Amino acid sequence: MAYALRSAFRKQALLIPFLNAVRGMSSSGGPTPPFTTLSVTRPAEPTTHVEFCRPEKRNAMNKAYWLEMVDCFNQIAQDSECRVVVFSGAGKLFTSGIDPMSMASDILQPEGDDTARISWNLRRVITQYQETFSVIEKCPKPVIVAIHGACIGAGVDLITACDIRLHAGCLEVDIGLAADVGTLQRLPSVIGSRSLVNELAFTARKMYAVEAKSYGLVSRVFPDKETMMAGALEMAGDITRKSPVAVQGTKINLIYSRDHSVPEALNYINTWNMSMLQTQDLMKSAQAAMEKKNLKEVTFSKL
Amino acid sequence: MAYALRSAFRKQALLIPFLNAVRGMSSSGGPTPPFTTLSVTRPAEPTTHVEFCRPEKRNAMNKAYWLEMVDCFNQIAQDSECRVVVFSGAGKLFTSGIDPMSMASDILQPEGDDTARISWNLRRVITQYQETFSVIEKCPKPVIVAIHGACIGAGVDLITACDIRLHAGCLEVDIGLAADVGTLQRLPSVIGSRSLVNELAFTARKMYAVEAKSYGLVSRVFPDKETMMAGALEMAGDITRKSPVAVQGTKINLIYSRDHSVPEALNYINTWNMSMLQTQDLMKSAQAAMEKKNLKEVTFSKL
Amino acid sequence: MAYALRSAFRKQALLIPFLNAVRGMSSSGGPTPPFTTLSVTRPAEPTTHVEFCRPEKRNAMNKAYWLEMVDCFNQIAQDSECRVVVFSGAGKLFTSGIDPMSMASDILQPEGDDTARISWNLRRVITQYQETFSVIEKCPKPVIVAIHGACIGAGVDLITACDIRLHAGCLEVDIGLAADVGTLQRLPSVIGSRSLVNELAFTARKMYAVEAKSYGLVSRVFPDKETMMAGALEMAGDITRKSPVAVQGTKINLIYSRDHSVPEALNYINTWNMSMLQTQDLMKSAQAAMEKKNLKEVTFSKL
Amino acid sequence: MAYALRSAFRKQALLIPFLNAVRGMSSSGGPTPPFTTLSVTRPAEPTTHVEFCRPEKRNAMNKAYWLEMVDCFNQIAQDSECRVVVFSGAGKLFTSGIDPMSMASDILQPEGDDTARISWNLRRVITQYQETFSVIEKCPKPVIVAIHGACIGAGVDLITACDIRLHAGCLEVDIGLAADVGTLQRLPSVIGSRSLVNELAFTARKMYAVEAKSYGLVSRVFPDKETMMAGALEMAGDITRKSPVAVQGTKINLIYSRDHSVPEALNYINTWNMSMLQTQDLMKSAQAAMEKKNLKEVTFSKL
Amino acid sequence: MAYALRSAFRKQALLIPFLNAVRGMSSSGGPTPPFTTLSVTRPAEPTTHVEFCRPEKRNAMNKAYWLEMVDCFNQIAQDSECRVVVFSGAGKLFTSGIDPMSMASDILQPEGDDTARISWNLRRVITQYQETFSVIEKCPKPVIVAIHGACIGAGVDLITACDIRLHAGCLEVDIGLAADVGTLQRLPSVIGSRSLVNELAFTARKMYAVEAKSYGLVSRVFPDKETMMAGALEMAGDITRKSPVAVQGTKINLIYSRDHSVPEALNYINTWNMSMLQTQDLMKSAQAAMEKKNLKEVTFSKL
Amino acid sequence: MAYALRSAFRKQALLIPFLNAVRGMSSSGGPTPPFTTLSVTRPAEPTTHVEFCRPEKRNAMNKAYWLEMVDCFNQIAQDSECRVVVFSGAGKLFTSGIDPMSMASDILQPEGDDTARISWNLRRVITQYQETFSVIEKCPKPVIVAIHGACIGAGVDLITACDIRLHAGCLEVDIGLAADVGTLQRLPSVIGSRSLVNELAFTARKMYAVEAKSYGLVSRVFPDKETMMAGALEMAGDITRKSPVAVQGTKINLIYSRDHSVPEALNYINTWNMSMLQTQDLMKSAQAAMEKKNLKEVTFSKL
Repeated sequence: MAYALRSAFRKQALLIPFLNAVRGMSSSGGPTPPFTTLSVTRPAEPTTHVEFCRPEKRNAMNKAYWLEMVDCFNQIAQDSECRVVVFSGAGKLFTSGIDPMSMASDILQPEGDDTARISWNLRRVITQYQETFSVIEKCPKPVIVAIHGACIGAGVDLITACDIRLHAGCLEVDIGLAADVGTLQRLPSVIGSRSLVNELAFTARKMYAVEAKSYGLVSRVFPDKETMMAGALEMAGDITRKSPVAVQGTKINLIYSRDHSVPEALNYINTWNMSMLQTQDLMKSAQAAMEKKNLKEVTFSKL
Repeated sequence: MAYALRSAFRKQALLIPFLNAVRGMSSSGGPTPPFTTLSVTRPAEPTTHVEFCRPEKRNAMNKAYWLEMVDCFNQIAQDSECRVVVFSGAGKLFTSGIDPMSMASDILQPEGDDTARISWNLRRVITQYQETFSVIEKCPKPVIVAIHGACIGAGVDLITACDIRLHAGCLEVDIGLAADVGTLQRLPSVIGSRSLVNELAFTARKMYAVEAKSYGLVSRVFPDKETMMAGALEMAGDITRKSPVAVQGTKINLIYSRDHSVPEALNYINTWNMSMLQTQDLMKSAQAAMEKKNLKEVTFSKL
Repeated sequence: MAYALRSAFRKQALLIPFLNAVRGMSSSGGPTPPFTTLSVTRPAEPTTHVEFCRPEKRNAMNKAYWLEMVDCFNQIAQDSECRVVVFSGAGKLFTSGIDPMSMASDILQPEGDDTARISWNLRRVITQYQETFSVIEKCPKPVIVAIHGACIGAGVDLITACDIRLHAGCLEVDIGLAADVGTLQRLPSVIGSRSLVNELAFTARKMYAVEAKSYGLVSRVFPDKETMMAGALEMAGDITRKSPVAVQGTKINLIYSRDHSVPEALNYINTWNMSMLQTQDLMKSAQAAMEKKNLKEVTFSKL
Repeated sequence: MAYALRSAFRKQALLIPFLNAVRGMSSSGGPTPPFTTLSVTRPAEPTTHVEFCRPEKRNAMNKAYWLEMVDCFNQIAQDSECRVVVFSGAGKLFTSGIDPMSMASDILQPEGDDTARISWNLRRVITQYQETFSVIEKCPKPVIVAIHGACIGAGVDLITACDIRLHAGCLEVDIGLAADVGTLQRLPSVIGSRSLVNELAFTARKMYAVEAKSYGLVSRVFPDKETMMAGALEMAGDITRKSPVAVQGTKINLIYSRDHSVPEALNYINTWNMSMLQTQDLMKSAQAAMEKKNLKEVTFSKL
Repeated sequence: MAYALRSAFRKQALLIPFLNAVRGMSSSGGPTPPFTTLSVTRPAEPTTHVEFCRPEKRNAMNKAYWLEMVDCFNQIAQDSECRVVVFSGAGKLFTSGIDPMSMASDILQPEGDDTARISWNLRRVITQYQETFSVIEKCPKPVIVAIHGACIGAGVDLITACDIRLHAGCLEVDIGLAADVGTLQRLPSVIGSRSLVNELAFTARKMYAVEAKSYGLVSRVFPDKETMMAGALEMAGDITRKSPVAVQGTKINLIYSRDHSVPEALNYINTWNMSMLQTQDLMKSAQAAMEKKNLKEVTFSKL
Repeated sequence: MAYALRSAFRKQALLIPFLNAVRGMSSSGGPTPPFTTLSVTRPAEPTTHVEFCRPEKRNAMNKAYWLEMVDCFNQIAQDSECRVVVFSGAGKLFTSGIDPMSMASDILQPEGDDTARISWNLRRVITQYQETFSVIEKCPKPVIVAIHGACIGAGVDLITACDIRLHAGCLEVDIGLAADVGTLQRLPSVIGSRSLVNELAFTARKMYAVEAKSYGLVSRVFPDKETMMAGALEMAGDITRKSPVAVQGTKINLIYSRDHSVPEALNYINTWNMSMLQTQDLMKSAQAAMEKKNLKEVTFSKL
């Protein structure tokens, strides 16, 4: 743990340019039209920053949020100018989970003539809630989530659907007891201790950053939000300099692998790569390697 | 590691009431009729304590044990007064695994006119052995296992079928070489290092508590059995104060998730929750939250 | 971490006989005919040592290597004199991954009249590359891989297909960007942090031994290659003294379990063991246990 | 065969009211705004009739068609006034498959800087094509397809995604050679002769109504389109008089069953029905049965 | 069709001894204690005849029936004297499906404090209903079902869980609309026309013997019940003269194949047969073949 | 049935050129070196004819046969000059199944020190037997099997692994009782009556051509072997005139579909076709269609 923290501090010195960039970032700006809960900016080409922007409501997930996430990530999936996404929350904490008002109408007072018809309608609502986070997985661009302050209830559903998790300071991760939309499905494949997964799921206890890192829920811990955002942008920059054919194919195949046996997944990537290896990017990289050029200087066309 | 141990000690001060309860617990009592190897008590409503109670034989698993476990957990599954189970072993160690006498007749001298017929009968025996631990998974109530002293051979099959693993002191976990009834199937999804799983399975070496915790096999380590039992009861208490609809649905869905892809598991919980979200428990919790009441004071009806 | 390193050092004293054996090992010898990239020796009955032996090319994987691995491990799978395999690399580092020359002709300039036919031929090449590492899994004998210096690109594909990973000193593991032949499929089930898997896959950053151990990628770390080789041989020796029926059945069932649900895997081992438990090895072990003899003195016939 | 034809003729006498209704049906009307290729009418509450309406182009599937099908069936899925769908084609034949003009731009001249990027874009097109027919399956209302004249190429992809297939007169079913979007996946589970599936797929030979019926591709054959449309409406009427909770749950579970093992599918319907059996429809049916009333007179509320 | 009927008649002449046996069969006897709905007899060693014996209630499935079926088939599964089962119904028809009285209390008036708890209890009931027919599949002995008169509602769930279906005379098969316990899961793999499966499931129309045979739902049609029972006994006799190791292994592997891919199923039978081919029965058969003896004269020991 | 036979006869007139070609075919020639049981000829470019050529032993499958099939079909898979395979048997019948002599040594007298080791060796033999027929599926070229006289025991395993089944005259298909190597796995997906599959598997009764056709086991019936061979060659000719990219991709995807759910199979063909649709063959076909040329005149380059 100490190692991770020290190495994070040491890196801070090099991050000053990033920190300055961060200071001018979107959190001051508020939601981006037509969104009312999300602010979408482009801090650096071709990185997209999506910020959950209801700080006055502790970033609670309301009806607009459930729909806007789907629109937002579907657009990003189609946007060939974007190669990586950083997701964070505005204000004092990452998210407080489902908005009680939203839940009240959707889940506590569902419509329907009898139990079967109420169930039918509830199923539609849950499907919609699930899609809110599944779009993150369906979007082939890597999504780095930067968690600060607190991440409660449905927030855990959200972060387990992201690809890389970063964490700032000492804070709480708390699995609430409301409608589950992904945690029970994704958390067990996200961390390597089944006993801990069960403990968290049954007791809904808090989990601090140190523990989250030691069990692999997050892969990096930072001392504060500002440093974390700089770290997230730096990591995003590293990813955008790689071939987008390689990066996005990697995400698609990693998610495929999680849900299939190894022989199935080998067969799939085999079929995938029979065309994808015919990219110029591979040739460009090979040439740069032979000319002993820095790979970071190679430019790849967009995807 | 140090963190976990320290926090365990710190908690000990608060655990005095639990420790007193523990002192009066079942281990002095012996098996509960009609069982000869298990003692079943109720230290606190609605927690059930199952204790492996053949201390004079180092809790070796004999013929009676294989059958009694199935009866015992089937009863618990149907018992709406029980919401969580604590499982532990009486005497100096948790369990020494399969009783050599039991194995001798069942496995070393199986009946049958020819190899095919012997195999047929052996398959029946293995099926029965497997069922002994699978009932723990089929029972929808969370099972916390408290391991002390040593856990050898088939004991590892047993603890990997439980939901939450607690560990007391420095002791050995040793995978023996006899009939495997679950370890090879469940251990890989229980801990996060494939290399370690293989090393343990091929070499049957000892594994101490510190290592068990660092790899996530157990999620908490305690200095001694007494403190562990108090910790187990406290955790059980936390779970029993939650909605049994939420807790038991969580167990069923977590096990479903382990064995299915994420999209399959999302579809399943969707279908599950279209009725289960229509519980009054959700309404009660929401109301308590709005009235800023402590959730622990909400009472949920039994399931 | 410190614990692991200290315990490795402490063991070193006992390893002197092994160290002497290691000093006379194959790395001086060069490839074994008919192989040009692999040296196959038998440092101790019934352990086979396979050494990647192109040190002058930093053990880069060339055309001969892809084919020889398949031949070599198919032979080992059939060789009843061999019960365990140690795999290592000769020279300064473990492997530098795919040989650029090999890749140039196979992947950068594939044959074919149109895109479909080029893809068809590329698929054949990738299948062949994949088979190079899949043979390690199909071989029922445990494979211990000893990694030193550096393990780059396709080297990660190689080590994730082995059963037990050992690591010497502080070195780099670097996932390159070329044709993927197993890493995306096997790495997620090998380590317990999905966030880290994604980070490594998207950024191709270096990973040092300490981190590799803490996330479970390797299960033991050693101060230098010599000590590691001695440790590998000692572990191999432990395995060879066990029943080969138990060891090889364990490997087959562990790999089956990784790719199937728990109930499926229980059904499979049930069917497997209805014959395999009828081995004399079980009787011999039981008898030794009853006579309080050391299990290491029991001799099992070959398989 | 003869049996089926005779029984179809015999029924014709009873079908006169339906035939009259058919004569006034939509095929005269042309597409329904905002659609340009589909005409959507409601010949009888709560039956929806969707007619492929490009007779001057032999109902060839053009760009508009691919998108309009998705919109149309998504609307139907949400429309609680609709309980069953009849799908047919206007003009002389059912459909001639993909429009060569549409295919020319989408598939023959795809965009992209290199092969990988062209492939990436093609994959998007195929996904869109596949969705055109998958929406039929995702819509929980039964879809009866009435095929007349000829059904060529992608038409087979279309009809295999429908639930019930009716066929008029002696005509040809011809699997073309273009982009496959469902036939290879669905045909094998639709008919019971693997040898015939392969023969059709490899030789693209014509298949007449008699053969289509004898192998179960269609379940009813009619002498002409008019009679068939009347038969389709009559069957639709039978379905709309049943409980929509039962009918739509049946479709969802039948498709689930096709893609899962029997134990998986039993578990799923178990979870499905724990809420759906709480419908008033079941009570109403039971009551009617006890009062010996005709079940067709029971009215069920919409879903 | 005509072919099948003619061949059935022609065989009748040879069946006189069987017909005489049939005349003395159990249908006159009534239920066998401790069963109240089932009569279990042994018309010929080692064939077991299970007869549904509530003719005065048109063999409606009541509470006792659901439980007795499980007991009965579990006993048969363990009974090494039994090698094949014939299942039929006493009285005028095979079965009228679920008893309205049984359904009323179990399904129409379930217990529970809220919707979730009612759902929980309903799920338990459905599980129990499903088990009633799943025991037929879990029993490794082939089950021949002889259907006469009518088979309504849950009767279709029952017959699809049997291995071989025989049919007498012209009668109706009618899928009702109540709680489904297997038809939607098993019917699609039982017959080869998906369009017909859907038609039957959505319209619940009657299906006559000729159609049932032409679509493969039943494999033989007989002119009347008496001839059918004789045919069933003759077929049972053919099966009991074969090696029980081969017959019961065949059933287990056929059901495994239905639920798995071909490579999975090949792997399973491979593991199954590595012991089962070591049966003396194979040797006995081979010897008889070499000595040109009739295989029917070879005696195999029980299983 | 009558229909099929009549149409077969009617076609015969057109088949005279084929019949003449057939008369000069390989059956007179005997095995082709280096094979001793198979004769491989090329009756017409690019059709390969493989003939089982041990007529004096009734085409019994001996040790050489098991190995030669694997070599033969692996070669065909790599041979870009071959686009389709016709498989038939020389002499009076198609095949009598496993050679008793071969079975005697392999299966009746397996080697090994104890039951486990005998089982281990038997598993190796069964794997090898299974591979003999699985190579037919792994070869991407369509395989038409022409069955005459009789097809006994393992012959059914063989024909179910082929793609298209043709049948001549009235003959017997008899599933024997020896080592199963594919029938139980493939037959259920080959024909559409589960009841019949079970009946055949349990009773091993004969099945005549008429029944085989009516249940879809074979898709065409011919009056005699000569006409059937001509029909097989004609069908082969039809296939070879199609794009090999389309034909071989179709086989690979049809087999993939059999073993996966529909959504899985749609995803796979999507990934497959993103490169395969970039073939010139599609352009050539489209151009010919626009120029109203006969598609049979288009020439496609080899694969």
